[in-house]
Amino acid sequence: MKDEDWMRWALQLAASARGQTSPNPLVGAVIVKDGELVGQGAHLKAGGPHAEVHALRMAGEKARGATVYVTLEPCDHHGRTPPCSRALIEHGVARVVVAMVDPNPLVAGGGIRRLRQAGVKVEVGLLEKDARALNRGFIQRMTSGRPWVIAKIAMTLDAQIATRTGESRWITGEKAREKVHELRSWVDAVVTGVGTVIADDPQLTARPPGGGLSRQPLRVVLDSRLRIPGDARILSTVSAQTVVCAGRGLAPAERIAELAARGVDVWLIDPDSEGGLDLHQVFGRLGEAGVNTVLVEAGGQLQGSVFRSGLVDEVVFFLAPKLLMGSGIPALAGEGVERLAQSAQLEITGVEAVGEDLKVTALVRRAEKGR
Amino acid sequence: MKDEDWMRWALQLAASARGQTSPNPLVGAVIVKDGELVGQGAHLKAGGPHAEVHALRMAGEKARGATVYVTLEPCDHHGRTPPCSRALIEHGVARVVVAMVDPNPLVAGGGIRRLRQAGVKVEVGLLEKDARALNRGFIQRMTSGRPWVIAKIAMTLDAQIATRTGESRWITGEKAREKVHELRSWVDAVVTGVGTVIADDPQLTARPPGGGLSRQPLRVVLDSRLRIPGDARILSTVSAQTVVCAGRGLAPAERIAELAARGVDVWLIDPDSEGGLDLHQVFGRLGEAGVNTVLVEAGGQLQGSVFRSGLVDEVVFFLAPKLLMGSGIPALAGEGVERLAQSAQLEITGVEAVGEDLKVTALVRRAEKGR
Repeated sequence: MKDEDWMRWALQLAASARGQTSPNPLVGAVIVKDGELVGQGAHLKAGGPHAEVHALRMAGEKARGATVYVTLEPCDHHGRTPPCSRALIEHGVARVVVAMVDPNPLVAGGGIRRLRQAGVKVEVGLLEKDARALNRGFIQRMTSGRPWVIAKIAMTLDAQIATRTGESRWITGEKAREKVHELRSWVDAVVTGVGTVIADDPQLTARPPGGGLSRQPLRVVLDSRLRIPGDARILSTVSAQTVVCAGRGLAPAERIAELAARGVDVWLIDPDSEGGLDLHQVFGRLGEAGVNTVLVEAGGQLQGSVFRSGLVDEVVFFLAPKLLMGSGIPALAGEGVERLAQSAQLEITGVEAVGEDLKVTALVRRAEKGR
Repeated sequence: MKDEDWMRWALQLAASARGQTSPNPLVGAVIVKDGELVGQGAHLKAGGPHAEVHALRMAGEKARGATVYVTLEPCDHHGRTPPCSRALIEHGVARVVVAMVDPNPLVAGGGIRRLRQAGVKVEVGLLEKDARALNRGFIQRMTSGRPWVIAKIAMTLDAQIATRTGESRWITGEKAREKVHELRSWVDAVVTGVGTVIADDPQLTARPPGGGLSRQPLRVVLDSRLRIPGDARILSTVSAQTVVCAGRGLAPAERIAELAARGVDVWLIDPDSEGGLDLHQVFGRLGEAGVNTVLVEAGGQLQGSVFRSGLVDEVVFFLAPKLLMGSGIPALAGEGVERLAQSAQLEITGVEAVGEDLKVTALVRRAEKGR
């Protein structure tokens, strides 16, 4: 096997812990001595050992003179665990192949420098693109303070999420809805609007077909005036945490107190110029809370606003093979752009049949995002 | 090669004349003697020899005792050419494998009966599904009097065909627009509304990348009140014919006379209850004129009406990786259905990347069509 094959395997190891390492990144490590795999591991959970530590423990004495493939630069700081750079040096590894430099300003090349100073051969950049794709959320939070925002849009092929009378169950099929639960199990937070809570009373928990999740994404309800019903399921499900974002100066004080008394987190957010919430502030707060990835599952008004704010990084469409053949409730509501040049430009990264529906995944191109 | 392989080749021969045989169907024929291909042909043009005749001429004396594979039941009537059933018998073929019975009521099993009476072994139904797909338009016209209607919808992923200020050039990329010209070169007629003529002044001719088409689809403008500008390009392009459908009692007599004097065909159509044209009548007239397949390329109003009339058989979407992020000009305008059960149910038959765009082809499911 070649360097690239080992690194690809390290990336697969990293991905095995998808959805359970936040606020930490996904990391995989592989140790190879004389062409033989002697150690491997992934970072499984914040607070637990880093990938390199798992792999070094497995390799033991065999790590001496070996090559280590690691998907992210080894850390050089005392966090919850001792620095990996030191552990690698102490085990006497000869060579470290790193897919990408750590975007965390606390590390920023320090691990690589430390290894080199100790005489370890270090190569950087193998399969970097794949490594970056694996940790988009973490990288974005480390570099911008905001999480990676994925908009989920389940709609008819004519871009409607309900008929004009409000019938929305179900636009997409069972398989697509299962995929949504899978998506929720991978993200750190799910954002919705109070309109959706009032209309559909969703739980917004991740209930993938396999079941048995150890953690649930944080549920975030944008509700400037605190209209959320006291008996909303999103407030009562105990398995998952909920944050309600209310408008500073817009939400009645007694409702804030009422929710707080029930143990619901209420975040006060400044209103934007149109009486909604300042969405940059909302996502900034989520970043501060260690949220790397967010899934927005909302009605057309909020979904449209999040897009127009330039905050969406990725879109997952579930396109149902149906047409309402005229006005219903649009997936993106509000006033669209005037010029085509101002539209959100997407780069389609995947198309997949999911039952009778079509799943289309796309990245929002950066250059066109800030308007 | 097996029966199925020879029939598949006959189907490919048939398809080679795509877009040039109307009002006749596409037909291919292959003659095999002792495992050797001795004759082959396709029906190339209405008025020209049938596929079997081409193949028999090629085979000559070798047709005696041979097997003939033909994608459509051989004709048994004197049309523009003598009956193929007689020609096959005269050439002494031993066996005829037929993919499908002719849906034309003038033939309807007669060719098969005639062959069997003459002692020829006849088998029917090999690759029938493929054969039917090849001649959807012809079959539909023969059985219902109406052409096969394909709606072409080039739109953003949020189902808009222009920004709210009307900017529509270009939603889709160059490759997608080339595919549209290819589509036009395959159909017998292109239908649009006067709104599109006024807004975009399109030629609606087929100008595929290869160029050099011997025929152009008939262009049909739905224009109940004859608002079409006298200098519209669709009226002046000489390479293609244009029909303008006007509303009986709605279109001013002097405009009808004016257009007729310029050599433009004007069809008077009864208005529907909402002051538009009775679309069933329009497509019925097209069927009477020998049009097998129609491409509808229109704005949201007309496109929505055609869908709601239950007249669309197939949809070709070109999905541009763009979002207008709110209201623009929707691909399907007018009032949509109240209930999800009333929506047009599609069966996606193909997904293809076309440049940066996505081409999605779908059939409209029959059961849900008639509302």
